[in-house]
Amino acid sequence: MTVLNSVHHINFIVADLDVAVQAYQSKLGLGSFEYEELPDRGVSTARILIGGVWIILVSPRSKDSLAARYLEAHGEGFFLMSFGVDNLQQAMAELARRGALPKDRTARPGILDWQVADLETEQSLGVRFHLTQAD
Amino acid sequence: MTVLNSVHHINFIVADLDVAVQAYQSKLGLGSFEYEELPDRGVSTARILIGGVWIILVSPRSKDSLAARYLEAHGEGFFLMSFGVDNLQQAMAELARRGALPKDRTARPGILDWQVADLETEQSLGVRFHLTQAD
Repeated sequence: MTVLNSVHHINFIVADLDVAVQAYQSKLGLGSFEYEELPDRGVSTARILIGGVWIILVSPRSKDSLAARYLEAHGEGFFLMSFGVDNLQQAMAELARRGALPKDRTARPGILDWQVADLETEQSLGVRFHLTQAD
Repeated sequence: MTVLNSVHHINFIVADLDVAVQAYQSKLGLGSFEYEELPDRGVSTARILIGGVWIILVSPRSKDSLAARYLEAHGEGFFLMSFGVDNLQQAMAELARRGALPKDRTARPGILDWQVADLETEQSLGVRFHLTQAD
């Protein structure tokens, strides 16, 4: 049985956060976004909850950030999908056993006091996946 | 107010459906996938529901399919995200008014008797979005 309970959030990389929020609101009729800086990751974020799933726009603030390198290489678009888990440490141990992340990978803080962990599934699944424990 | 009620499904393009399902099960501990052909789109699909959101792996059957062209250009990975709507015709009209799809765009059948409509947001938002009315 999987430890992955939900699709918790989806991150899209954008070049300019204000321009992107305006475009999402204009084209899709979405409401207000909430903004939060994540200085440790060198990014600014804007999020909106749609039917229980967070859509998060992520814009690089630092040229050294992973987000900046991704934007440079791929342009705007899908960055990662995060699964919701009840117990992040337990989920990380289970997925490390499956080879989806290194055993010594540590959790890190996300926005909204989420605890998150990056998987290493780009090579094996073609997609950057991620885990989030929200409370 | 937006007509987009939920994140209904996320499609990932894969080269080989059986290899991909096996990899998702092995790396993420996911359970059984359900398979369905979608001949009109030239693809085979395998889906699993995670916390109310369908994760759908899509593999091209036909070299002429959009999926095949996407795989050729981008490799495996994120293809589109579909928003759930209550009333597809109403949602299409509203989003056409916003310039997210042409006014003459028609709905088409998806898997599981879903009715779906493709938006044209790749240029404006950097992401292929889609609408689904599930019942």
